[in-house]
Amino acid sequence: MQKSIVLLGSTGSIGCNTLDIVEKFPQDFQVVGLTAGSNGVKLKEQIERFRPRVVALLDQRAAYQLQKECRHLPVEILSGVEGLKAVATLPECQMVVSAIVGAAGLVPTISAIRSKKEIALANKETMVMAGELVNQEVKEHKTKILPVDSEHSAIFQSLEGHRKEDVSRLILTASGGPLWDLPKNAQAQVTPEEALNHPNWKMGAKISIDSATMMNKGLEMIEAKWLFDVPPDKIEILVHRQSIIHSMVEFIDGSTIAQLGLPDMRGPIAYALHYPKRLSLNLPKLDLAAMGQLTFFKPDPERFPCVDLAYEAMAGAGTLPAVLNASNEEAVGAFLNNRISFSSISAVIQKTMGAHNPKKADNIDEILLADQWAREETARVVKSHQLH
Amino acid sequence: MQKSIVLLGSTGSIGCNTLDIVEKFPQDFQVVGLTAGSNGVKLKEQIERFRPRVVALLDQRAAYQLQKECRHLPVEILSGVEGLKAVATLPECQMVVSAIVGAAGLVPTISAIRSKKEIALANKETMVMAGELVNQEVKEHKTKILPVDSEHSAIFQSLEGHRKEDVSRLILTASGGPLWDLPKNAQAQVTPEEALNHPNWKMGAKISIDSATMMNKGLEMIEAKWLFDVPPDKIEILVHRQSIIHSMVEFIDGSTIAQLGLPDMRGPIAYALHYPKRLSLNLPKLDLAAMGQLTFFKPDPERFPCVDLAYEAMAGAGTLPAVLNASNEEAVGAFLNNRISFSSISAVIQKTMGAHNPKKADNIDEILLADQWAREETARVVKSHQLH
Repeated sequence: MQKSIVLLGSTGSIGCNTLDIVEKFPQDFQVVGLTAGSNGVKLKEQIERFRPRVVALLDQRAAYQLQKECRHLPVEILSGVEGLKAVATLPECQMVVSAIVGAAGLVPTISAIRSKKEIALANKETMVMAGELVNQEVKEHKTKILPVDSEHSAIFQSLEGHRKEDVSRLILTASGGPLWDLPKNAQAQVTPEEALNHPNWKMGAKISIDSATMMNKGLEMIEAKWLFDVPPDKIEILVHRQSIIHSMVEFIDGSTIAQLGLPDMRGPIAYALHYPKRLSLNLPKLDLAAMGQLTFFKPDPERFPCVDLAYEAMAGAGTLPAVLNASNEEAVGAFLNNRISFSSISAVIQKTMGAHNPKKADNIDEILLADQWAREETARVVKSHQLH
Repeated sequence: MQKSIVLLGSTGSIGCNTLDIVEKFPQDFQVVGLTAGSNGVKLKEQIERFRPRVVALLDQRAAYQLQKECRHLPVEILSGVEGLKAVATLPECQMVVSAIVGAAGLVPTISAIRSKKEIALANKETMVMAGELVNQEVKEHKTKILPVDSEHSAIFQSLEGHRKEDVSRLILTASGGPLWDLPKNAQAQVTPEEALNHPNWKMGAKISIDSATMMNKGLEMIEAKWLFDVPPDKIEILVHRQSIIHSMVEFIDGSTIAQLGLPDMRGPIAYALHYPKRLSLNLPKLDLAAMGQLTFFKPDPERFPCVDLAYEAMAGAGTLPAVLNASNEEAVGAFLNNRISFSSISAVIQKTMGAHNPKKADNIDEILLADQWAREETARVVKSHQLH
């Protein structure tokens, strides 16, 4: 039987990979809705390929343009946050793939949960900003979240069939990103092009910079805490340059279960889409003998202070992780626009967090307020770090 | 509630490790029976420590001696194969730990299965010689086998919670043993002391030599085939010198699940004893960052021909694996007694296998006949390879 899927963020990297899988397994999946931010051109191609009943663009103007261009097609085109929410809650949809990048993914994902949709979650910000609230909503609406991030998929796969009570540690592996070998004093000179050049994964710009600062791993720690209900002191980071072991779970008897594979997001996406069954993806096989070795290092908080900032936000909880996340988005944007240096990213976030007065994160308005406050505060702090 | 345990082969390496765990978790386990080959001295110590109701020694004379020495203790002492079978089928026993080394483990293990005991299986020969028959008996008597070998425990743990239909390969890791780095032409001069010097595991003599010839891995392949019902062409060997990844399962979506840990048999033993719960063993933790790297190589059939002999036996099936196993036991014995060279071990087994006329392995008598024939044939072949 086909599973009916809505894909939030269809024109991004995870979105396109998801559609690749859907196209390969037409007997298993059917796309009923798509949403994107402003990329109407790509969305139009996807409409023609997958024939969804409804789509939405966050950008009103782009939506209007798309409506004109798709007049001949049997598709309903919505716009704005309300449009995204409408697609996320389509009655015929069974699973929502939440693949919007950044904080913008939160509201439509919550809507989908409240409509009892199963969630394949690639938008880590949903859990970083609102993990406690999301878990409550998932419980209340009797649905479930399947992680799509490669690390969380690895932990999910490593936990399958084992007792949660027996877990002693989650070990998130980190590639270390493109700047792992760079000395601290050279970080200030890093250009966006250098920071975007990830050694193992092809990803969007925001997440590639997060990988270079290792904030990515910090956000993943917070996501892991909420997804797997494990306290901060049981979550560790291990730098593993080759990105072959995607993460691990250690148990009280000293046994560790790990999930490995070549770095290809189609693996974890397909696992979430088709869980608990696997799809025969015909991806290149992992050949460890040909690779020769896997290497491991401790994280380096001196050169990658973002990890400690995330630890701090995770331990502080409340609205602090939302502030960390929003400030990071703004700081990364400022870096990509050449307004601040690479090493200022963490400094800007730290100052913003320091200025925050954390609240309980038990309702969405409070979280969105904290997000908004953090963006404005970060804009102020960015000015004081401005390069030119 | 305590689990009542019988331990076959209590004075060997696995036996002693099992008793260490039992002693640490007296609320979970109770020893009701022990058996050994001829080591009455050690068995007496174990009787005093664990107070089993019944014990047996295979050696009649040693049993008689033990009876005299234990007159003051409330223990029944049996002897011979019938004694072993009686202990293996004690009515109050729930789980039999089958840890006899070599072919001698087969008959009492089958008796235990027929008495519907759960089996924690360390005696790989049971599956190598009689895998098909054992699986039939397990099914008929509605019991189960929990593997204790570190590789098979790793595969078992990696399969837990995943669909058997989705398995594409079992990858058995091999340390490569103490002679991995030795050129082929130097193998003839290897002494028993050198071959016994395993880099990662402390084990008995027979299994240490099997590790040096890599026959150990060949026998494990055959065991894996029967334990996990996977065809020979889906079982591979990967040399991994550090023995940290204990084995892996690859699935059709390209995802691989692995089980890792420091080399310590108490991990897999405790897992089998207490399955599906884990015990808090307080073993030293795996620290991959401190290790730095894990390395991987392809096996080398040129220098380690025993792996191919095992492949051949596995593919040929019937009584051929029993012949491989018996001939290997005899050839290893001849090497340990300095009667043949290290490199003659595989040559002797190959000749013996070549002289065998395989039968169906569907009853125990046929298997034991093949075992007996192989030992006699090997003795003849050994003579033609004799060193002095």
